Amino acid sequence: MTINRPLRLALFGSGRIGQVHAANIAANPGLELAVIADPFVDGARKLAETNGADVVSDPSEVLARDDLDGVIIGSPTSTHVDLINKSVDRGLAVLCEKPIDLDIDVVTQCRERIGTPKSPIMLGFNRRFDPSFAAINRRVAEGEIGKLEQLTIISRDPAPAPRDYIAGSGGIFRDMTIHDLDMARFFVPDIVEVSATATNVFTDEYMEFDDYDSAVVTLKGRDGELITITNSRHCAYGYDQRLEAFGPDGMLSATNMLPTTVKKYTRTETEQSDPYMNFFLERYVEAYAAELEAFAQSIRTGEQSSPTFDDGVMALVLANAAEESVKTGSAVQV
Amino acid sequence: MTINRPLRLALFGSGRIGQVHAANIAANPGLELAVIADPFVDGARKLAETNGADVVSDPSEVLARDDLDGVIIGSPTSTHVDLINKSVDRGLAVLCEKPIDLDIDVVTQCRERIGTPKSPIMLGFNRRFDPSFAAINRRVAEGEIGKLEQLTIISRDPAPAPRDYIAGSGGIFRDMTIHDLDMARFFVPDIVEVSATATNVFTDEYMEFDDYDSAVVTLKGRDGELITITNSRHCAYGYDQRLEAFGPDGMLSATNMLPTTVKKYTRTETEQSDPYMNFFLERYVEAYAAELEAFAQSIRTGEQSSPTFDDGVMALVLANAAEESVKTGSAVQV
Amino acid sequence: MTINRPLRLALFGSGRIGQVHAANIAANPGLELAVIADPFVDGARKLAETNGADVVSDPSEVLARDDLDGVIIGSPTSTHVDLINKSVDRGLAVLCEKPIDLDIDVVTQCRERIGTPKSPIMLGFNRRFDPSFAAINRRVAEGEIGKLEQLTIISRDPAPAPRDYIAGSGGIFRDMTIHDLDMARFFVPDIVEVSATATNVFTDEYMEFDDYDSAVVTLKGRDGELITITNSRHCAYGYDQRLEAFGPDGMLSATNMLPTTVKKYTRTETEQSDPYMNFFLERYVEAYAAELEAFAQSIRTGEQSSPTFDDGVMALVLANAAEESVKTGSAVQV
Amino acid sequence: MTINRPLRLALFGSGRIGQVHAANIAANPGLELAVIADPFVDGARKLAETNGADVVSDPSEVLARDDLDGVIIGSPTSTHVDLINKSVDRGLAVLCEKPIDLDIDVVTQCRERIGTPKSPIMLGFNRRFDPSFAAINRRVAEGEIGKLEQLTIISRDPAPAPRDYIAGSGGIFRDMTIHDLDMARFFVPDIVEVSATATNVFTDEYMEFDDYDSAVVTLKGRDGELITITNSRHCAYGYDQRLEAFGPDGMLSATNMLPTTVKKYTRTETEQSDPYMNFFLERYVEAYAAELEAFAQSIRTGEQSSPTFDDGVMALVLANAAEESVKTGSAVQV
Repeated sequence: MTINRPLRLALFGSGRIGQVHAANIAANPGLELAVIADPFVDGARKLAETNGADVVSDPSEVLARDDLDGVIIGSPTSTHVDLINKSVDRGLAVLCEKPIDLDIDVVTQCRERIGTPKSPIMLGFNRRFDPSFAAINRRVAEGEIGKLEQLTIISRDPAPAPRDYIAGSGGIFRDMTIHDLDMARFFVPDIVEVSATATNVFTDEYMEFDDYDSAVVTLKGRDGELITITNSRHCAYGYDQRLEAFGPDGMLSATNMLPTTVKKYTRTETEQSDPYMNFFLERYVEAYAAELEAFAQSIRTGEQSSPTFDDGVMALVLANAAEESVKTGSAVQV
Repeated sequence: MTINRPLRLALFGSGRIGQVHAANIAANPGLELAVIADPFVDGARKLAETNGADVVSDPSEVLARDDLDGVIIGSPTSTHVDLINKSVDRGLAVLCEKPIDLDIDVVTQCRERIGTPKSPIMLGFNRRFDPSFAAINRRVAEGEIGKLEQLTIISRDPAPAPRDYIAGSGGIFRDMTIHDLDMARFFVPDIVEVSATATNVFTDEYMEFDDYDSAVVTLKGRDGELITITNSRHCAYGYDQRLEAFGPDGMLSATNMLPTTVKKYTRTETEQSDPYMNFFLERYVEAYAAELEAFAQSIRTGEQSSPTFDDGVMALVLANAAEESVKTGSAVQV
Repeated sequence: MTINRPLRLALFGSGRIGQVHAANIAANPGLELAVIADPFVDGARKLAETNGADVVSDPSEVLARDDLDGVIIGSPTSTHVDLINKSVDRGLAVLCEKPIDLDIDVVTQCRERIGTPKSPIMLGFNRRFDPSFAAINRRVAEGEIGKLEQLTIISRDPAPAPRDYIAGSGGIFRDMTIHDLDMARFFVPDIVEVSATATNVFTDEYMEFDDYDSAVVTLKGRDGELITITNSRHCAYGYDQRLEAFGPDGMLSATNMLPTTVKKYTRTETEQSDPYMNFFLERYVEAYAAELEAFAQSIRTGEQSSPTFDDGVMALVLANAAEESVKTGSAVQV
Repeated sequence: MTINRPLRLALFGSGRIGQVHAANIAANPGLELAVIADPFVDGARKLAETNGADVVSDPSEVLARDDLDGVIIGSPTSTHVDLINKSVDRGLAVLCEKPIDLDIDVVTQCRERIGTPKSPIMLGFNRRFDPSFAAINRRVAEGEIGKLEQLTIISRDPAPAPRDYIAGSGGIFRDMTIHDLDMARFFVPDIVEVSATATNVFTDEYMEFDDYDSAVVTLKGRDGELITITNSRHCAYGYDQRLEAFGPDGMLSATNMLPTTVKKYTRTETEQSDPYMNFFLERYVEAYAAELEAFAQSIRTGEQSSPTFDDGVMALVLANAAEESVKTGSAVQV
């Protein structure tokens, strides 16, 4: 059975990521934003204006409604599990931003509590929906380069997050690398070993949180695949998001995106392109729209879509393993 | 005085280009599509559904309304001048697809009739709004490569238009090259000489219309600038739309756009990209949205925006000169 | 019959181009430089040192020798025809730098005088031997893009030649464009029409010689092929030498060469390459070596190799036609 | 004191690498190849022909000569230490191919025995002389991207070496990765920690030698620099040799080299380049010539040049540490 009418969604959180989802709902003719919930009602009200959505400060008002098909959870991490539990109880489809929670025990309890919900749950690993990464994933699956042997992921943020954010972020592996770990699992679902090295190379600011500004993670897949993730908390030339998939028959690569195709040639330089797109809101604009459409499609058909709740669990498990590897100096079997 | 409320627009024509404008109006929060006029009411009705616009078959019903700020003329070329005249009479802002008309006398009469209208008139030379071409134009104007000396325009359609279309198209110069001639004038408004060479190199089909499948046009600017336009009615690798601006301090170039950044490397090839975007609806999707926004801005402020009616006239004058040059074998002064 | 021993060559002229040939002879195990002739004996002596060649000031001393297989004429243009005539009389193979002469009558007389010489004569249109251009030429001939329809040649010198050089150069078409005209004929031997436009856009210095700093030439081939050549006497970003061959099945392009593959990414720019190679001695270093080897192969086998004397004649005919077209404003049939 | 006459060199080994050196000596006007020593006299004789060098089968005949300035050791690895010792005893400059020996004890003994020799000893880590890698190294040292933070090295061989070669190669780390480890130390001389992961992902053939077909190595520098090396024993698209240096002010990258600049555009693909250069003899042709010239310059001036004997020692130490890390699953401090 497929739902053919426009779907009615609720949005928890009207911050940066909530705004992205609200805009994509507005642009998607098959979706309607029914209500936005945020304790900071002013921001939510501003966002609701262009969408004609209701605004509430208390999430329970959302969960009490009976006109909803699904919810998008873009509120702070600490609220995720509670909202997931209650939404699942109400039979609502859920799209939850990563991470589910910073504590694996809390995540595991949530996993047990929800069991196999009737409605789909999707995790907000948006990069799986990036047109370039998704195309490589599909082409690798179709055998274009043979069986995958090596995967190289380079992922650098344009600028360090504020000190306060870092303090509560759960550390580089659970906050930043987790996206790359999910990307690794997008290509190689069965990871058997994690090794990681991390340093503070450009700032001492994170040391007090036992955190790092730079990291390298090596993953080994069940069939001997080798995956490297290179992270930095800063990057002068913008948001650096690249991937290479290597197999016996060749390689598929994806590089950063440019706002135009303009190149400049002068006495001192040639073939010079513009700066790269600054950060994830620009870089992954198409990915967020595609992610939302996949969520909608999942609701319409009732079929679970990737990335699942378990993908969220596994990404956290790998992030924890990476941290353990740094602390112990040993590879961690998972 | 600036209009702050959403602008109400009418659309003449619900064909391919009308659909582009309707979609862009829907996505632009500052615009509303009030009415679509098309004798083929069924297509218009389908288009209107998602926009909630009225549908009429007779253009005069549009012109009788008093709730409009402007009109977009996307109907067949033969209707352009009449709709421009009547819209201007009604004090409506006009965005008219190129060409104004295939007959320069008709265009000149229209020019005289409308004089200096109170409301803005804009010509639909969408490529001026392409982010890459617009960026080069701005950067050249800012002096980044010094005074412009040479401009190289390559413009090839992916596949020949149907024979019937060609028959009524006015010929390659007035139908296809006219866009490139306007691009030339975007950079060098004062063209003083036109030379052109044209051949039928891949099909004989156009000969009976005294038309060509391939053409090269050389323009000379008032200050000695040299501009080349290379056209072909077909192109195996997609819609080929490139531009290079050359000056004493360097060059700025824009090349074709790719759907992803994916590259492939195998035994027989390396650095292979996907096929280019197929045609103007994909290639110039951002340009059409920016053009519409410029039109809206023009209505709001009451200030005439480029490209103007006179830009439309001059492009046709140059197209006619190019055709004359091919027929006479001589350069034509304009 | 094939000669298997190392070939003994004479070199007329020890200037810039003579030095290139001398170095390539030294590096080619199948060639020996027997003698260098130059009135400026000092330069020749210096050059001969590393090659162990004899040095003479009078060309007739070269022609009197009986130990030679061929001559390379790299002396001033005014000496070319006389040296060709005498070398052919002596039965020697000839590799002569372009142009044969600036005066088509002189060239025609030379053509008649030498008739069909027993030994090969090759013209120094070195670009035919550039690995990229040669590869495209071969691949087009093999049908990789179907029948050639359009050829785009961009050719810009890094900096204007000195005023004195320009004065005696024969003008931009016979001095500079002639290389591009030969490149056009490398792909489309039968040119039937020439149109040209030329201006002085960045300096007035050449006007007194009735010459131009910038030019565009359009050629039409017998089968409707359209070829454009864009020339400038200066180019901030180095020696600009590019070519695109377009056919029904696709395009093959060659662009400028870089000294390394290094790219730079910063806050203000990305993917920035080094400046291009400065001028023909660097850009065409491989082409000169391959040209020499083709000449050697031609001597060994006795078989005439491209580019021929007649290729030299035709390039001059086209250069003259281009100049005539600029003066008359009309296309010139050839 | 500087030697101004041409230098006289001896070459041990006339195999693949010996041939490269012989050709570069022939092309370098400041060098003469006096003698080639190889038990397989036939190959040596053939090589000597074009160089006019003497040929001997017994190395001691070389060491007995008194007309030599230096020796190049390109014979099998097992002969390296003995030839180094004897050449140093004779006061000859030495350029020795990597590795010095597969056994670190043997290398250490050799190190102690030769002490600080009067004449320079250079190790054949040719990649330090690659124009692109050398340019990045110089530009990083000049501060162009600020203090180096991350280095990404990708290094894949085009095809697996024969089984017999692998059997005696010392394993992937000492045979293949060692070049990349030296490249890492070219940028970050002080490495403090080595982690490595290795698998057999495309063949089981190396398992019996306790060896791997694929490996990833992570190095940590004294100042927190993170370096990743990705190796594969095969690569469909050719010899994959890339490097990226990342710092606070940007990135410098070097990619693979192409034989021409030709690109192809068709219905199914665009911007397609030729296959990459096949293997090190083609890819590093300029590097070998520059390495030889650095060796010559070292002899002329008497000044030790990089890479030194100790660089050879350190590369082996790191290779051993990488192997240990794979075996123990722990990071190894060095």
